[in-house]
Parts: sequence; structure tokens; C-alpha cells
Amino acid sequence: MTLIAVLGGGQLGRMLAVAGHSLGFRFRFLDPDPWACAGQIGELVVGGYDDPTALRRLIDGAAAVTYEFENVPARAAAWLESNGPAAGVPLSPSSRSLEVAQDRLLEKQFFQEHQIGVQAFADLSRPEDVAIAADTVGFPAMLKSRRFGYDGKGQCRVDSALEIDPAWQSMGRPPCILEAFVPFEREVSIVAVRGRDGAIRCWPVTRNVHRKGILWRSDVVAEDDAIIRAAQRAIDRVMTGLGHVGVLAIEFFVRDGSLIANEMAPRVHNSGHWTMNGAATCQFENHLRAITGLPLGAVEALGPATMFNLIGGRPDLEELLGVPGARVHLYGKEPRAGRKLGHVNLLNAEPSTIARVEAICARTNAA
Amino acid sequence: MTLIAVLGGGQLGRMLAVAGHSLGFRFRFLDPDPWACAGQIGELVVGGYDDPTALRRLIDGAAAVTYEFENVPARAAAWLESNGPAAGVPLSPSSRSLEVAQDRLLEKQFFQEHQIGVQAFADLSRPEDVAIAADTVGFPAMLKSRRFGYDGKGQCRVDSALEIDPAWQSMGRPPCILEAFVPFEREVSIVAVRGRDGAIRCWPVTRNVHRKGILWRSDVVAEDDAIIRAAQRAIDRVMTGLGHVGVLAIEFFVRDGSLIANEMAPRVHNSGHWTMNGAATCQFENHLRAITGLPLGAVEALGPATMFNLIGGRPDLEELLGVPGARVHLYGKEPRAGRKLGHVNLLNAEPSTIARVEAICARTNAA
Repeated sequence: MTLIAVLGGGQLGRMLAVAGHSLGFRFRFLDPDPWACAGQIGELVVGGYDDPTALRRLIDGAAAVTYEFENVPARAAAWLESNGPAAGVPLSPSSRSLEVAQDRLLEKQFFQEHQIGVQAFADLSRPEDVAIAADTVGFPAMLKSRRFGYDGKGQCRVDSALEIDPAWQSMGRPPCILEAFVPFEREVSIVAVRGRDGAIRCWPVTRNVHRKGILWRSDVVAEDDAIIRAAQRAIDRVMTGLGHVGVLAIEFFVRDGSLIANEMAPRVHNSGHWTMNGAATCQFENHLRAITGLPLGAVEALGPATMFNLIGGRPDLEELLGVPGARVHLYGKEPRAGRKLGHVNLLNAEPSTIARVEAICARTNAA
Repeated sequence: MTLIAVLGGGQLGRMLAVAGHSLGFRFRFLDPDPWACAGQIGELVVGGYDDPTALRRLIDGAAAVTYEFENVPARAAAWLESNGPAAGVPLSPSSRSLEVAQDRLLEKQFFQEHQIGVQAFADLSRPEDVAIAADTVGFPAMLKSRRFGYDGKGQCRVDSALEIDPAWQSMGRPPCILEAFVPFEREVSIVAVRGRDGAIRCWPVTRNVHRKGILWRSDVVAEDDAIIRAAQRAIDRVMTGLGHVGVLAIEFFVRDGSLIANEMAPRVHNSGHWTMNGAATCQFENHLRAITGLPLGAVEALGPATMFNLIGGRPDLEELLGVPGARVHLYGKEPRAGRKLGHVNLLNAEPSTIARVEAICARTNAA
């Protein structure tokens, strides 16, 4: 029986397990939270991510170890890379992907080095960086913590040089990056998978809508060829450059028909959840195929697809399942404001059906 | 969190859980086998099916209790029906469905009473039944144990009245049924789901091929309208007659364009496994929706579909996943001759792809 070890026991880990169970795989998760939702459907090791005893228990007997969030402590990744291979348990994706994706400054520099468009940005880690950053980037700008930001957390908008220091102060003066504010036309993302042999498959580009910094909706619709090609080129360079094995996502702003890379995630991604019902192979299964060295599955879309997140409040399952074609995915998590509790996928749906599901999900999210 | 209790921890229970995890459900299984494969992905109570202590543990805190095999002891069903409802845990489908489906004689009589075609048959439970049964049924005939037969076990062919007694003797003289042998043109089955409100949805009819008494292949192809209508009428009568809640399947022989009901299963069924990748909603999800009182999902086929079983030997996962479009489902079971270890679904596949998968599965099955 193939055992997959996963750092993190949240919904992404849970959905990896749902996909992997069909392949006969078993799952073991490491999470400090004893109520981590993936623990409902697999083995859960409760412990710190950088606790060697917990890590040893996590990988014991596993065929591969992976992660479902990018803020894996560097010490944990280092431990896994020194201790895993001897036990036949490779860490995929490797620590190189984590290192770049964990730090907004390294990430932007990496994009730039790989000829991927980014907005103006500057390091803002020391007091003496403030003036230079303000000059380099201009205003309006976004001040973002270099590390540990997600879903709009750890960032704020600044409209002049004078606002920088108070904003930075309010964040606790962590190492930051100052980024030019991009008045984008829309947001898109691309999710792709790279196998051990270097083969890359890209799912279709999605158009994404965020609300309060959290992904609200993704649509797979006919996209400009130039956008698709640029996104594919970008993710190809990033994955190849990192030697990445597994799924990776890049979010972009679209401005004047060009892509501006905003951030990457070295893992399965919320904007790829539509693939569970809308693609020949979903991102979760292909991630597992990649990290276990199995052939990758086809990634074409089965039709136009839409995904809505269920955020904050408990959804009315009866109402949602009453919508013909609505494919509901719940994560077994307790409701809490701003928390992702599930999502709904639609494939080849009529506009009226999409609107109906949107209304139900919006009501949940407002709760 | 909705907890579903399941009698039986085999692959059907496992696939119920895989489908239910997407709805945020948790699962608890009861099985005497501590290695029951559903236990890998849910809670497993190890115990006898008719042990009240085990049954009490099984249903504690559950929203519904169901079963994944029809040979649930009558005592277990009776216990659940006296103790479950008070705890808010209904048994679905009810003991009435079990009672009829467990006994080939009652089953055939039930078909007959509901105007569903059956071959000639006769009770053969006492020595004095032999002569009458031989006269009523004629030859060739099949002698089958009334209870506990599955996958071709507990039955043998008899070609004359003289062969009955030795055959019966070799089976240990259990209560039997003698059935006229049907020289059928093909075998088909229909799988349907009935909700608590009596609503019924029928998946498309499949054509089935058995080998050594075990289902080998199911195809969803264009079927004669008359066959489809007859199968739908039959399953409608059976489900309504039983007051069945959940999924039920009926297998038929086709002869001269007519249906002859062979047997029913009051549960999710192997000939419905194609629905996991080929129908708007799979049989496992709709069974769960039915027993929890949620609206039923749409059941239309997404295209022509084919399923092959993986029987006996460990399949070559790498080879199977290398076939574009092959959707592999493994059950986490150890290989053993004649054991169902998994299946492969194909949707809208080219004949050459179907042939390729057939060859891989056939090789596995021969191992």
C-alpha cells in the first residue's frame, strides 16, 4: 500500500487524500492542530512541523512526502531533505520551491530572472530602505510582509512616502517588499504539474475574482491566446528553473493585454479546484502522480467551468445539492469568519444556474 | 459533521466514503475483518454484524446507517430497526429490502408478484421438492443456494433430474432454488436510486459481461428503447414495492428482446461503478444523498462509458495510468485469486483505447 506523507492537514491535504484514495493510496498528515480536517480521513500525527520526532513519525514507511502549504519551516524542509532520501522518502516539491515561494522578494526576483513580467518592487527590510523603495516603486503601492502572508493578510496599501513608516510600524516592522499598485483589468492564474521526468502539463488559465483578499470565484472561459501562451511560458520557466516536481500555480494581473506575475504557490491551489469536476485529471491526482513518479494524466477542460468558494458560514447543503449540476465539496471544518469551508464546481452550466449558485454561496459567505 | 455508519468495510463501503468525504461526511464501518479496506479511510469497528455492542458503537452519533452487502444477518437488521430510530439513526435501505434480496426464492416470487419476467423456478428446500422442481423447471437448469450466494458461488448447473440430488448433496443440502437455464443473448443491469420522498432516478442501462461468475466488464452504450423502458418499469416497481431508500440494482438476461430478471442487489452495485467518472452524479453520492434525505443528483451519462474490473492480481498502476483517459480506482486490498481489487473507467474512449485497457486488465485478472 502506497503511503503518502503530507505536511499540513488542511483542506488541500484532505483533497489530496480524496483523490489518492481512488488510487489505493493511504495518507498520513502532520499538523499541530489535533482537529485538522484532513485527519478525519487519514492518519494524523499531531506535532510541530519542525519537530524531528514528529517528522520521523510522518515519513515512516511513506513512498513520498509533500506539503499542502508553502510556509513549511526551512528547518523542517532541511530535516526532510537530509533524512528522507535515505529512507526512500523524497520531499517533493523540494526545498528550493519553498525557499523561493516563501519570500515575496525572492519570488519577484526569481520571476524577473526568468523573464516574467512583474510590477516595480523594492526590498524594505531595513529603515534605510524606505526612501529608496519609495523612489523606486512610486505610489500608490502595496507594502507586504516578505513572509507568511496569505489571503490578503500581512499587507496594506500606501499612497505616499510618508505613509510607509506608520504602515510598516503597524505590521511590526517585519522584512517587507514594496510593490507598485497594479490597476489591473482582471486576475488570472495558471496551474500546472511537472513530473519527475520534467514533463509539464498546464491546465487551462482561469479568471479569478477575489473578495477581501480571498479567492471568491474562478472561471475557465475562452481566454486570449496571447495570455494563455504567456502564462504557459512563465510557468514552464518557473517549474523548470526550480526543478519543481508536483503542482505549482502562478497568479497574474492582466494589464493592457500583458501578464504581471503577482505570486506563485508551490502546491495545489484554490484556483485549480474546478479541475475536480471540470478537467480530465484533477490537480490533486496529478500532484500525487508526479511525486510518486507515475505518468501524468491529461489536463484538458471538459467544458466551461466555474468555481465558487464557500467562506465563513455553514452552507445549506440541501439547497446547494438541489441545483442541478452543482458539485459540492465540503472540507469538514467548523464555520469561522473568513475561513474556507468548501467550494462548489459547475461544468457546462447555464448562466442562470451559475447565478443561482453564486447567490447561495454569497449568502453563506456573508453569514 | 455528518457521520454515516456502514455495515461492511469492503470496497463498496470504501467508495461510499470516497464520495461522501467530498460532502464533508465522516464514516464508520463495522466489519469482523480488522484489515477491511474501508478502514484505511474511515473509522473501523471490528466486530460481528449481529453483536449488539458492536452495533451500538457503530451507530453512536451517526446520521444514518446503511450496508454495503446484502447478507446482513436478519438479527442485525432487526436490532438496528428497534434501536436506531430512537437514536435518530434510521436503517436505509430497510430490512424489507434485505429480506427479499437475501433469498433467491423470495426474490423471484417478488419479481413475479410485481409483473417482472422471470425464468421458470421452483423451491428446492426439502427432499420431496426434487421431483416437483424438476417437472416445473425442466432442463438444463441451475441449482442455486437460496441464501449467501455471490459472484457465482453456491450454484451449479444440472442437466437432468438425476443430477439434482448429487449436486444438492455436494452443496451440503442448503435450501435451494431450481431455475431454468436461460440461453440469453446478453446480460444487462439497471441501477437506480430512490429518495426518502419516493423520487426515483435511473442511471442508463449497462451491458455486462461476466467471467467465471464475476463481473468483468460493463458498457453504457445505445440500448434498445424497449429494453430501457422495461428495465426502468421493473426497478420502479421493485423500489416502490419495497419502500426502498437508497441505491438498488437489478440484473437481467435479455432473450428475444425481453428482460428476464435474474437478481437484485439492495445496494450500490459493481455494474454502477462506471458512474464514478461517467455520470453527472455517481451511485455512491446518490446513495448517501438518499439515506440522509438530501436532494438526488442528476444521473445522465456524460457519454459512452466502459468499466473493467481488476480481479485477482496486482495491476500495473504505471501502465494503466499511462493510457490517456483511463480512470483507475483501487481498493487498497491485497491480491488474491478471484478477488476484486479495483476497476478502470473509460468515458468517450476510442475502441483502440478500450482494447488497450482491456488487455492490461485481462493480464491482471489472469495473474
